[in-house]
This record gives sequence, structure tokens and C-alpha cells, in this order.
Amino acid sequence: MKEFGFNYSGVKLYFGKGSVNKLKEQLKPYSYFIIATSKTGARVSGALDDVKAALDQINSKYIIYDGITPNPTTDQAQEIAQMSWENGAEAFIAIGGGSVIDAAKMASVIHKNGGNAKDYLYFNRRASKGKPLFAINLTHGTGTEIDRYAVLTDEKGQKRGISLIYPAASADDPSYMTTLPRNQTVYTSLDAFYHSYESMTRLTATPMVEMLAKEAIGKISEWLPKCLNGPKEIEARYWLLYSSMLAGVAIDMEGTHIIHMLEHALSGKNPKVPHGAGLAMLGARAIYYTHKLNPIKSAEALKAISPFIKPVADDADVAQKIVEGFQKEVGFSERLSDYGFTDRELLKMVDELAPAGVVPRREFMPMDREMLTDIMLKSL
Amino acid sequence: MKEFGFNYSGVKLYFGKGSVNKLKEQLKPYSYFIIATSKTGARVSGALDDVKAALDQINSKYIIYDGITPNPTTDQAQEIAQMSWENGAEAFIAIGGGSVIDAAKMASVIHKNGGNAKDYLYFNRRASKGKPLFAINLTHGTGTEIDRYAVLTDEKGQKRGISLIYPAASADDPSYMTTLPRNQTVYTSLDAFYHSYESMTRLTATPMVEMLAKEAIGKISEWLPKCLNGPKEIEARYWLLYSSMLAGVAIDMEGTHIIHMLEHALSGKNPKVPHGAGLAMLGARAIYYTHKLNPIKSAEALKAISPFIKPVADDADVAQKIVEGFQKEVGFSERLSDYGFTDRELLKMVDELAPAGVVPRREFMPMDREMLTDIMLKSL
Repeated sequence: MKEFGFNYSGVKLYFGKGSVNKLKEQLKPYSYFIIATSKTGARVSGALDDVKAALDQINSKYIIYDGITPNPTTDQAQEIAQMSWENGAEAFIAIGGGSVIDAAKMASVIHKNGGNAKDYLYFNRRASKGKPLFAINLTHGTGTEIDRYAVLTDEKGQKRGISLIYPAASADDPSYMTTLPRNQTVYTSLDAFYHSYESMTRLTATPMVEMLAKEAIGKISEWLPKCLNGPKEIEARYWLLYSSMLAGVAIDMEGTHIIHMLEHALSGKNPKVPHGAGLAMLGARAIYYTHKLNPIKSAEALKAISPFIKPVADDADVAQKIVEGFQKEVGFSERLSDYGFTDRELLKMVDELAPAGVVPRREFMPMDREMLTDIMLKSL
Repeated sequence: MKEFGFNYSGVKLYFGKGSVNKLKEQLKPYSYFIIATSKTGARVSGALDDVKAALDQINSKYIIYDGITPNPTTDQAQEIAQMSWENGAEAFIAIGGGSVIDAAKMASVIHKNGGNAKDYLYFNRRASKGKPLFAINLTHGTGTEIDRYAVLTDEKGQKRGISLIYPAASADDPSYMTTLPRNQTVYTSLDAFYHSYESMTRLTATPMVEMLAKEAIGKISEWLPKCLNGPKEIEARYWLLYSSMLAGVAIDMEGTHIIHMLEHALSGKNPKVPHGAGLAMLGARAIYYTHKLNPIKSAEALKAISPFIKPVADDADVAQKIVEGFQKEVGFSERLSDYGFTDRELLKMVDELAPAGVVPRREFMPMDREMLTDIMLKSL
């Protein structure tokens, strides 16, 4: 399990055990930080203590905001920004998974440029950059520690992912992940799986995206089952984190398509849906359509899970079954109905996604309204 | 053949057809350039015309230095710097392969900081940074358009590769490579192959390096033979260039070991040895030892060329034969004696590389003096 570091898009990424200590060098220019986090993850994992120790060593002070929840809101980002700006923090340290890091990205932009979160979320206002943001990543799902995206939900339940800012530096330390609960382990790993699958099956995907996504899917399919058998083993966490980081680069280079689009509608309406669970509930049926439309890349992506998948449209139902089987193997069998969704609500979401009958982002995947409807209803 | 771009270590890389036109945006802040190149490549490929057209479009002026030769010297770098500094160039455009880009890297450092090339080459003086350097890459070998290295030879025939600076932006356009002569096509592709093989077989190699190197070797073994059958076909050039670029990232993250160390001694003494040819002459026997010492990674690396290679030390002679066979298949069968080397000279080089009997850089590969001697003599 080798430690390493590299610079992608200006993000200095430190990967491996002890990476917070390496990231410390990057914190030295600043004397006053705001630490943005949630109630428990940063404490349980030990990451908060490590960050505090690092800040003590460089004689820097900090304040803490710990009110970030899963599927974070624009209001939370605004609150962090308010606290940070009022206190004159010079830089941000986000300790958490995607929710925490994304909320902190938005807060750093607001602190630097003023204004409010919704303006940035809806592109009424463009962010130039934010205050320097350092991300201590606590899950092997999001990839946001190395990508430019932030996903936030407004007060109307509209969830949007936008291109915002890159962290200045990030730490990916797998030892923080051994305390992730079983369901979070599955949800976040499946998030990384869908980042990989979606990015490489876009019609626009480049060879580098394919390389990164295949590497990630290969490791996830190998190590997620092992991780569930030994959740305290750091080696499995290392490979799952490695995969989610690579998948983060892949979506940064390329992006996602139908599954993320539909999922944001779900967890926007019901913030109790964990993002990874939302993806996984929709995923198998969505992969049926994706395989039909782009069988060569879909088969390439799924080969690590089942070498028997064929790169032909006729194998779309096989692709669906492979993904259902893999998810069942790792103990995932949730349905949209478990979260209280009704067919009526789901149809309304499809209406909102494709108001004029036209599905956006068709250049990446030729989706249509019937497809969205079928995926939603078959996932109930 | 998709076009793409990404930012690695601050290098904005534009990949694919028409990439000079995309890179043009990055040139806009500067009004006066020095173009560093060699006598023919930039003209024959059409790259010089494209650059001139781009500079005209942004109303920028330029001067041209076209005296860079293969295995460039510290004197050449000094000359370019002199011309650039006297004329007050604001930025550098290097149009060529590794020799051109490396000489321009050094010249840009000298222009910015003063002093002379040899001081930087021997670390008597550390470079902070150089003037902005834009690289238009004309070969699918070096990787220097995306890495921080520069390789130069001093007036005593000492050739050294050092970590110097990254380009600010680079263009990798495969259409410039369809005019590469057959021998250059082979030499440069084998250079990229050895970058890949050496980086991933270092004892310190990380999973990302392994991913990049394997991808590169896979594509080189598939596309180099095709390229030789249809040298004007852009698709083969695309994949060879893609591979050399990935291998550039791999050596930037990790580095090389025994083969590059020995080769620099060869082409330092005799600048007529093309770098890629030097590597290939030594390579097969060096791979025998590398496979013995690190059979798992070596077999992983060579699998794309021959799936029958086993990850055991006993297969070292098989590894050697696989590489000999592949090189023969692409028409490479040069020997050190073809360049006039004698066993006496080679033994002297080994003495110079390991003056106290101790081989440097053993942390990457446990090399010893007998090994170096045997590789040199068996390659005669």
C-alpha cells in the first residue's frame, strides 16, 4: 500500500496513510482556518484530531462549523460562509465526505466573492475562485476531493451538481475509512462505481477516462466484497479509496449521464436518500438502456464484474442482471418504495426533468422520456 | 480519435488534431516569443507553419532559433538563452521532440534566472522557474511535453537527466507525426515503451504508475506494428502519441532505472546514438535482470506483448526473448558495435557509473556492477 502524491488540475493530492501530515505543509501560509464538517464522521474517524494536531504544530488557529448534513443545502453553505467571513478565516478545511466538501466549496466561493449560494448554483453569478480549500476526505465515494464539482440542494428540493472550484490540496487517507458503517461503505463504493460506469459510457468519453474508469471498476468489484468481510482492514479501504479518487478524475474529465441526472431528482426531493443508494436503486435498469445504446463501452466497463458480458445491444438484459447480481452480492437490495416514493411522484419528477418532452444532455447519451419513466418505475 | 485536454502538474495539455489552435489561447498574454526548434522537423511536419499562423492571429511577433540537434548540449541551451534574453522574448515555444523541448526548458530557466546551463545541470544552482514555455511535441517518444525532466549533454560527453521545469502548456497533435521517418518512428516508440517498463518495475512504483504504464505498453505493442505498415495513418500515430504521453506522466510520477542510466552513458559519449536506439540495444538484456528482481511487475508489464510470460524469476530469459522478439518484429536489431563501441569503452563507462563499485539509485532497483557489465557486453 504505497503512499503517493500528484497534482491534477491544481489539486495537490496526498494519497495513503499519514497524508494529513503531508498536507500540513500546504497549510503553513495561513494562520486562521474554518474547519467545516458534520457532527460525527470527523470525530469518529480520528481525522479531526489529526487536523487539530497539525494546526497546533504550525501554530494556526481555527473555528469549527459542524452542521453539515447529508445532501447539504444552500442554506448550510451560506451559514458556513457567514461564519467564515465574519470571523475572517483565511482558508477552509473540509473534513468529511462529499456533502461536507461540496458545502465547503460553495462556502469558500461565497466568502471570497460575496453573494449567495443560489446565485452560484443557478449560474446567475459565476465564481472566479474561492478562498483556499483543503479537503480531508472521509469516504471512498465522491471524488470531490479531486474534482471541481459541488452538489447542493436548494430550499425547494432542487438538487444540482455544478462545476465550481477545485480544492487547493486534499488528503486521501484510507485509515479514516475503517470506521465507515457497513451501509455507507456500500453506498459510497457504488457511487464510485457509477461515476466510473457513467463517465466511460458517455458517447464523448476519451481514452484516458476509459482507462481510469476501468481501473476503478476492476478494483471496486474485487475489493468491495473483501471490505465487507473485513471492514477494519486497511488494504481494502486503500483500494476502494484509490478507485473513488480515480473515478473522481474520470468525472472531472468527462461527467455522468442518466443515472446521476435521475438520482439528483430523487435525493433532492427526499434528502433521506443517500446519494449512492439512489444511484444503485436506479442503476441496474439504467444500465440496461446504456448498454443498448453504447454496448462496446458498457461491456468494457462491466467485464471486471462478469467476463461473459458481450459488447452487443442484445446483451442489455444481461448487463442489467450483472449489476443486480453484483449489488445483491454486496448486500444492496433497496427499492425506491423503501423510501416512500410513489409512481405518481416519480412521473412528476420525469416531467420536471424533461418539461418539453426533451431530455437534456442528449449529446452524452441519447436518452428519451420513455426511458426515464421506465427506469423510475422499474426501480420502485 | 477524440480530442481532449487536461491539467497535470500545471501543464495544460491539449491532445488530438488541431491542438495547436487550442493552445493558441494560452499564448495570448505574450507579444514576443522565441521559437526554439531543429533544422527540419518543425518545417516538414507543418507545425512551424501552424505556430506562425497562430502567432499572426494573436498579433504576436517571434524570433527563431533552429540549431538544436539530437542529444542537445548545454552550449545549445546557453545559445538559445542568450538569443532569447538579448532580444527580450517574453515566452518560449519549443517545436520538436525531446531534444528540442529539453534544450528549451533549460534555456527558459537560464533566461529567467541568469547563470549557465552546467550549473543547473549539476545542481550547483537550483532553478526556481523559467520563462513560460509552450511545447509543440513532434515525436511519440519522450513525454517531456508533460513531465519536468530535461536531458542535456555537457562538453565532456556527460549526459544527465534532471528535474527542471514543466511546460506551461503543450500540444500533442498526431497529424504532425505522419512525417516521422521509419527509424524515428521505431526509436521514439521504444523510448515510450522503456519509460513505461522502467517506471512500473521500480520497487517504489505506485498503482497509478502501473495503470499508466500498462495502458501505454498495451497500445504500443498493438499500434507500432500497424504504424509501420501504414506510417501515414493518423490513427496509429494517435495511439502511439497517447502512449508516450501517458508514459511521460508515469516517469514524472516515478522515474526510470537501469536502462536509462546505462543509455545516458552511451549517447553521452556518442551523440550519434539516438536515445531510443540506445535503450532498445540495452533493453532486452536489462529486462532479463529486471524480471529476475521484480518478476511480478515485469510480467504485468510484458503481458500485452506476450500473455505467456510468468511472474516468476525463472522466466527472466523468457522476458528477454519476448522483448528481443518484439523489437525484431518492428525491425529493430541494432547492436552497440554498429555505433563503434568497444568492450573496453563499455567497461570504462561502467567504472564511471559505479566508481566505488556501488551503483547509484539502488533503492529503485537493486543493481550491481556485474549486472551493468553484463548488460553492456551482451549488447555489443
